[in-house]
Amino acid sequence: MATRRAFVTRVPTRAPDDVEGLERLFAQGSIRPGAVVAIFGKTEGNGLVNDWTRALAARALRDALARHAGPEAAAAACLVMSGGTEGGLSPHFTVFEVRDAEEPAEPGALAVGRAHSPDLAPEALGRSGQARMVAETVERAMRDAGIDDPRDVHFVQVKCPLLTPERIADARRRGAEPVTPDTLKSMGLSRAAASLGVALALGEVEAVADATIGRDPMVFSTRASASAGVELMGHEVVVLGRGRGWSGPLRVDHATMADALDVEPVRAALARLGLAAAGQLDPGQRRRLVALLAKAEASSDGRLRGLRHTMLGDSDLASTRHARGFLGGVLAGLVGHGELYVSGGAEHQGPDGGGPVAIIVEAQ
Amino acid sequence: MATRRAFVTRVPTRAPDDVEGLERLFAQGSIRPGAVVAIFGKTEGNGLVNDWTRALAARALRDALARHAGPEAAAAACLVMSGGTEGGLSPHFTVFEVRDAEEPAEPGALAVGRAHSPDLAPEALGRSGQARMVAETVERAMRDAGIDDPRDVHFVQVKCPLLTPERIADARRRGAEPVTPDTLKSMGLSRAAASLGVALALGEVEAVADATIGRDPMVFSTRASASAGVELMGHEVVVLGRGRGWSGPLRVDHATMADALDVEPVRAALARLGLAAAGQLDPGQRRRLVALLAKAEASSDGRLRGLRHTMLGDSDLASTRHARGFLGGVLAGLVGHGELYVSGGAEHQGPDGGGPVAIIVEAQ
Amino acid sequence: MATRRAFVTRVPTRAPDDVEGLERLFAQGSIRPGAVVAIFGKTEGNGLVNDWTRALAARALRDALARHAGPEAAAAACLVMSGGTEGGLSPHFTVFEVRDAEEPAEPGALAVGRAHSPDLAPEALGRSGQARMVAETVERAMRDAGIDDPRDVHFVQVKCPLLTPERIADARRRGAEPVTPDTLKSMGLSRAAASLGVALALGEVEAVADATIGRDPMVFSTRASASAGVELMGHEVVVLGRGRGWSGPLRVDHATMADALDVEPVRAALARLGLAAAGQLDPGQRRRLVALLAKAEASSDGRLRGLRHTMLGDSDLASTRHARGFLGGVLAGLVGHGELYVSGGAEHQGPDGGGPVAIIVEAQ
Amino acid sequence: MATRRAFVTRVPTRAPDDVEGLERLFAQGSIRPGAVVAIFGKTEGNGLVNDWTRALAARALRDALARHAGPEAAAAACLVMSGGTEGGLSPHFTVFEVRDAEEPAEPGALAVGRAHSPDLAPEALGRSGQARMVAETVERAMRDAGIDDPRDVHFVQVKCPLLTPERIADARRRGAEPVTPDTLKSMGLSRAAASLGVALALGEVEAVADATIGRDPMVFSTRASASAGVELMGHEVVVLGRGRGWSGPLRVDHATMADALDVEPVRAALARLGLAAAGQLDPGQRRRLVALLAKAEASSDGRLRGLRHTMLGDSDLASTRHARGFLGGVLAGLVGHGELYVSGGAEHQGPDGGGPVAIIVEAQ
Repeated sequence: MATRRAFVTRVPTRAPDDVEGLERLFAQGSIRPGAVVAIFGKTEGNGLVNDWTRALAARALRDALARHAGPEAAAAACLVMSGGTEGGLSPHFTVFEVRDAEEPAEPGALAVGRAHSPDLAPEALGRSGQARMVAETVERAMRDAGIDDPRDVHFVQVKCPLLTPERIADARRRGAEPVTPDTLKSMGLSRAAASLGVALALGEVEAVADATIGRDPMVFSTRASASAGVELMGHEVVVLGRGRGWSGPLRVDHATMADALDVEPVRAALARLGLAAAGQLDPGQRRRLVALLAKAEASSDGRLRGLRHTMLGDSDLASTRHARGFLGGVLAGLVGHGELYVSGGAEHQGPDGGGPVAIIVEAQ
Repeated sequence: MATRRAFVTRVPTRAPDDVEGLERLFAQGSIRPGAVVAIFGKTEGNGLVNDWTRALAARALRDALARHAGPEAAAAACLVMSGGTEGGLSPHFTVFEVRDAEEPAEPGALAVGRAHSPDLAPEALGRSGQARMVAETVERAMRDAGIDDPRDVHFVQVKCPLLTPERIADARRRGAEPVTPDTLKSMGLSRAAASLGVALALGEVEAVADATIGRDPMVFSTRASASAGVELMGHEVVVLGRGRGWSGPLRVDHATMADALDVEPVRAALARLGLAAAGQLDPGQRRRLVALLAKAEASSDGRLRGLRHTMLGDSDLASTRHARGFLGGVLAGLVGHGELYVSGGAEHQGPDGGGPVAIIVEAQ
Repeated sequence: MATRRAFVTRVPTRAPDDVEGLERLFAQGSIRPGAVVAIFGKTEGNGLVNDWTRALAARALRDALARHAGPEAAAAACLVMSGGTEGGLSPHFTVFEVRDAEEPAEPGALAVGRAHSPDLAPEALGRSGQARMVAETVERAMRDAGIDDPRDVHFVQVKCPLLTPERIADARRRGAEPVTPDTLKSMGLSRAAASLGVALALGEVEAVADATIGRDPMVFSTRASASAGVELMGHEVVVLGRGRGWSGPLRVDHATMADALDVEPVRAALARLGLAAAGQLDPGQRRRLVALLAKAEASSDGRLRGLRHTMLGDSDLASTRHARGFLGGVLAGLVGHGELYVSGGAEHQGPDGGGPVAIIVEAQ
Repeated sequence: MATRRAFVTRVPTRAPDDVEGLERLFAQGSIRPGAVVAIFGKTEGNGLVNDWTRALAARALRDALARHAGPEAAAAACLVMSGGTEGGLSPHFTVFEVRDAEEPAEPGALAVGRAHSPDLAPEALGRSGQARMVAETVERAMRDAGIDDPRDVHFVQVKCPLLTPERIADARRRGAEPVTPDTLKSMGLSRAAASLGVALALGEVEAVADATIGRDPMVFSTRASASAGVELMGHEVVVLGRGRGWSGPLRVDHATMADALDVEPVRAALARLGLAAAGQLDPGQRRRLVALLAKAEASSDGRLRGLRHTMLGDSDLASTRHARGFLGGVLAGLVGHGELYVSGGAEHQGPDGGGPVAIIVEAQ
């Protein structure tokens, strides 16, 4: 009986536009260009408004996919570039393939689904309309993955837009006022609305009001991950979970960190996936860890376990850069390497100051 | 029989010049102003050339000590302010007191010694003369602590100077050329020479050549920690170890991290001190952890465990800020809080990309 | 007949806490410590939330004044430290003295007045209550200067507070919500409310509504200059103008720049004060220029004379740092040196993207 | 008699990869894609090692030229992207075309020549071999422009490479040690060697020794402009001057600023080109100003006209960003807009702290 099988491959990069490693894997047959449905990239920009490494990486990837799989497949692939590899985090692409398989379906095998939304009007960004647009897109991605029960969803990545001075001016020319004139703040509000859209789709909330978005950190999704980028005005959604009709050895689970130091839920998730360890994963375990995806943010009360942090009052260095570097250290300390997808800005993505972590491993 | 007893107290701060917490502890009798021999501070600056939070904190602490213990005791105290509390690191002072005690000496009790060097000529900075000056000062600090055997030294903190445009011009007016005209680079070279001075005093190297300083990362001390600051031209040295004639429950040990992710030696040191844990220290253990002192740096080959890091090529954010935030995450993940003395710039302080960690605990 | 005479002296600094130059002028009798009513400082910090150079400079100046003029005079002096000396701007103090004189009053001689406000509650910051508090303080400073007609006021400097995470938490503990949880944004809102307070006192507006503050750039004062600093919760106001009973050769005038490149009003003001020049002031003219005080900001529409600027979308570098460096170049290009008081953040201080410029010269 | 005619067009951009404006001018026939020989771009990055806006812009421009003029013409065009539009500087492309013309040659008409060098070995960067390679390339570009006498050269733009951690590692694998392991410093040394190569070609110096490069600021070219970028390992050279066989109304001249405030030589050059003005150019004059190209840098002695600047001691903000914003203000103040090619890092490009300025105008 025909099934689908997900493949997940990490490819290190030497620069945002370095696709040589990817093309080498295409040439070796390790990755099939036509099977690529999504690429999550960590690029070495600041992860903020003027982070052009995301656009550069996306352009290089689109061009490479077009060369090897044709323009249509290239256009359909979800490219989610997340800027910021602070500290020991290492720039890389995580490539998701979906191939047809002959093996029987395995309960628990990794399922991958995706969907795109239409473009968002700049003035809808950060408001409930954006949340509803995302929720609808997540539902389509779940159907694509064959996931019926929201509890079987372990990670939802949303790439969402941000405001630029030009987009703000566009809206104003049409008489509409965007939610904020502050471009950096718009990134946070877009991630916030998108994440509540995920919560809506997963049944974690019943409705999303404008007043909740970016305001009430007690309302959140345990499985949303949103990245804002200047290179799009719509949304790209990728869902990871357990669905009908999938085969292969990959398994996914998730943890929710209550704060940036809450490592025990992550250790427990690793253990559930067969990677129990006192201290750091050993080299053998590390090889079986296929991907770790997490969101980082500074807690809004300026405290971490009662002690003052300085991330929010640092005018030289954005709090998202602080938070990625620090959480990168926390998580890399557990697993033993820095090729992790740690993405900044976790508004409504896990509890205030904490965040969701998804882990993909190869079962033995 | 009269002994000496070391007390070590962490005091959170709300700003670099916040000495209210300290003065409250003076008022409560928890800290005796006249017994304070050293204060290590983590302040919320960038830890680089223009980090004036160190000068501000030192000024506020000197004023507070002068008010409560007189100008002489204030002048004698070693104030080592290290800028940079990236990520979840938390600004605080660590206050070291030495009090006379009636208890019998305990083998293994924490010993604290200190010494000051004369001022260094700007042109001697980063050269072998600085290393010899520091070595001689470390030896005096060891004698002050009653430590005879260098193997009983677990941590040597050196506060060393840096070059400013004015100091460079001063040297040039006297016809002398400083080692570098680059002020940021001078911080690294000063830390480098100072650390090799520690290695010299501890017998880890036999001599220090100009050509080694800042160049050969294979030569290092396993117990040196150096911080450069604009506010002095001499050196302040504090030695922590086990010496003759000390009492009390505090114990110190150290670990050497081979790279920024090398957590197992730290876990082993914690275990030797009675704080063994799979995963993070539990709250009870955390309370017994009095201080953790560590050095952070980016590995000079641009790699961490074979994976590229971007700390050295980031022109927006100095590598020391990257490294502190990341190592801060690694270590805070182990112990469960961010009130750690993680200091940047680990030239010749542990292996390239790694560094020394000292841990002080209260024995049960 | 007894008059008062204002003296204005620029003192270069080698560091934020460098008062040696000032004390040398005290020793020489060039500046009389007891006559100092205000010092405006340009310090080399980032001019933003975590700019501790302002607190450091203020502390050093207060200590120096206390040593030379006693604690009471030191406490009464208005110390307005403005961080940020981007580009060729040069760190310095501008010292304002008011001395008793025997010369007859001269119409047009520089008059200096000052006043302090009480502390502001964090939740009043950025709201109309702050504007009213500032207006009342400006009126007291005008009376102090003997200025009856608001048209005789050429510059009003207000030092105003900002929010920190701690101050926000304080307000919330009392059940009050500050105007913003964003500390950087709070600086802008505080400057905004203070500047509208000046406009109120000078009759440039009739009332200030909450909704205008920080929102409507069409409402502004042509003579306000506000700097926010973490080191105070009240306001310090200094008024420069022409008043009754002043003598001496100093004269003041002002210009309003319509945008950051609007140099012709500045050239015209220089000409009115006797410093007409095609091109740059010549060295003789430059010596007669005693002080130039200006406000810089990025225009909120992202355009300068129709061309896009990138100051508002730069997440690595705050727009105020961009704007100070650029306007510093524009103005230093006119007058021939960079020892100018160019201060960032010109909310309601002159037109959007432009700002007020005050010039003090020594009449021939 | 057939001549060549240079066209120079400034095209504003909305993002580094925005070629819509350019393609609109292609469509209108205002710019002929096949005639484009060079594009100088100001992009909104930091202008430093990790400025990926240059690569992104170059990629977008190459793609656009290939679409409209074919891959060969696209490959031959010199694309010199200079990052950094601090303050009121405005991102734009300056497009240089060379078209065949029927008009008679006009003495003094703008001539444009170009040439490419082969790739440089990483270990040759910043050393005399690089200077000689550049000198030879400049000579070829002069021949291309029909310029026989170096005195007829008014501007030489060189795009040169920089070191990355990977390139350094490459060299070391071959047993060769690059001139510096510091990637940021490599940018300065590459610009230094390239600029001395220009001086060599123009007869301003007779030879270039390794020891001069980046060390002796008294040796310089008055007409070199060098920009380093990560996207190439060779050099691209464009020469502007007066040559044989050119027609059309464009004229070029240059000035040498002795320091960042030395505006009078620029005013004199404008006057020689028919744009004399007391104060700022008026709107009519401004329209005739086709391009202004300049280099900015912080003076190495930390002084500007005897007053301290803080550009070299600012660890948060690179001195090149400071210098561009400030000189941008000085020059934009003269001409009245910010669409200027002000490029950072002026090692051996004009006197220490000053730099070359080239001006292209349309003759009446």
